[in-house]
Amino acid sequence: MKIDTERLEKQLSFIREIDGLKNVLRKTKLFDGSRVENDAEHSWHLAIMAIVLMEYSNEKIDILKVLKMVLIHDIVEIDSGDIFLYDNVNNHQNTINEEAAADRIFGILPEDQKIEFIKIWKEFEDRITVEAKFARAIDRFEPIMQNIANKGGAWKIHNINSELIIEKNKIIEEGSQTIWQKVKELIKEAIEKGFVKSN
Amino acid sequence: MKIDTERLEKQLSFIREIDGLKNVLRKTKLFDGSRVENDAEHSWHLAIMAIVLMEYSNEKIDILKVLKMVLIHDIVEIDSGDIFLYDNVNNHQNTINEEAAADRIFGILPEDQKIEFIKIWKEFEDRITVEAKFARAIDRFEPIMQNIANKGGAWKIHNINSELIIEKNKIIEEGSQTIWQKVKELIKEAIEKGFVKSN
Repeated sequence: MKIDTERLEKQLSFIREIDGLKNVLRKTKLFDGSRVENDAEHSWHLAIMAIVLMEYSNEKIDILKVLKMVLIHDIVEIDSGDIFLYDNVNNHQNTINEEAAADRIFGILPEDQKIEFIKIWKEFEDRITVEAKFARAIDRFEPIMQNIANKGGAWKIHNINSELIIEKNKIIEEGSQTIWQKVKELIKEAIEKGFVKSN
Repeated sequence: MKIDTERLEKQLSFIREIDGLKNVLRKTKLFDGSRVENDAEHSWHLAIMAIVLMEYSNEKIDILKVLKMVLIHDIVEIDSGDIFLYDNVNNHQNTINEEAAADRIFGILPEDQKIEFIKIWKEFEDRITVEAKFARAIDRFEPIMQNIANKGGAWKIHNINSELIIEKNKIIEEGSQTIWQKVKELIKEAIEKGFVKSN
């Protein structure tokens, strides 16, 4: 059997490189509150959530494409780092850094796969297709569930009020009205329980 | 909009429950050797590996099914714990524990999804379909790559020789002859570099 050695070596180099995602720490803690979550665990959790919750997408979605999106969406953060959703200063700068990161990291793959991965990542970022809208909704929903499980969690630590949470997460509605309705209920309960403040 | 609250609550309970996979520690260290890997990170890595390496499957595969398999295959270990591949004592007992675990954990989901998840998990375990064979090959390949990146890693710590590695991992060939050929080359190199001993 003849293997295209050069192609396989590029693929194995990429597989080794993305190990770094396990060291990129997020602001949000695990549901059990024991420590902060890393990007690899987060991406895994989103993939399962997408499978379990796909019936709530506003429109019919290609679940394989959604899975690819959530699995690779944070890989650029190996170079650019995780930016907290509520950090307005770093949001713009981040976009430029992330494009360079995508080019470097996905560029380790053979050319055809590099093109495919960058296309999927950009589609997620652009939030135009139904798959991207649903994937982004899931990406926002996980930390909301975690912060509530942690009685306010990162919201409390960083002094985020309910109005800002609603404003920063309303894009969930574009992907799933059902999940958005649930999020609003959860935030209302979180205010009542004192996990988050309302202005 | 009317939501089936009971159904959604079951799904959210499952999503919270599987957070536990992030606390199930494996024997094998990350590629960078900094700490052992957990099952959630491992499952994420397998999913990306499956996408990147699918061209090497011996037969045409439904990649969506493979992704579902690798994403959920270790969830039972939240209850039954991770069993080291080279631990012969615990292998059999484990099967019984894992079935009870599958029943409890996937049983948190609505009935239709419970049935779907258990079916996918069993298909992975049974290793009969082409998807299961490929998923299992990827599941074995990741720790081999990690142990080599760590100059012997868990093999060295647990005194595993190259013959046992070959014996325990030869099922890779059922999923991918190309990956199996690469594994044999890597193990040969590992012997030459002193990362693993040959009897």
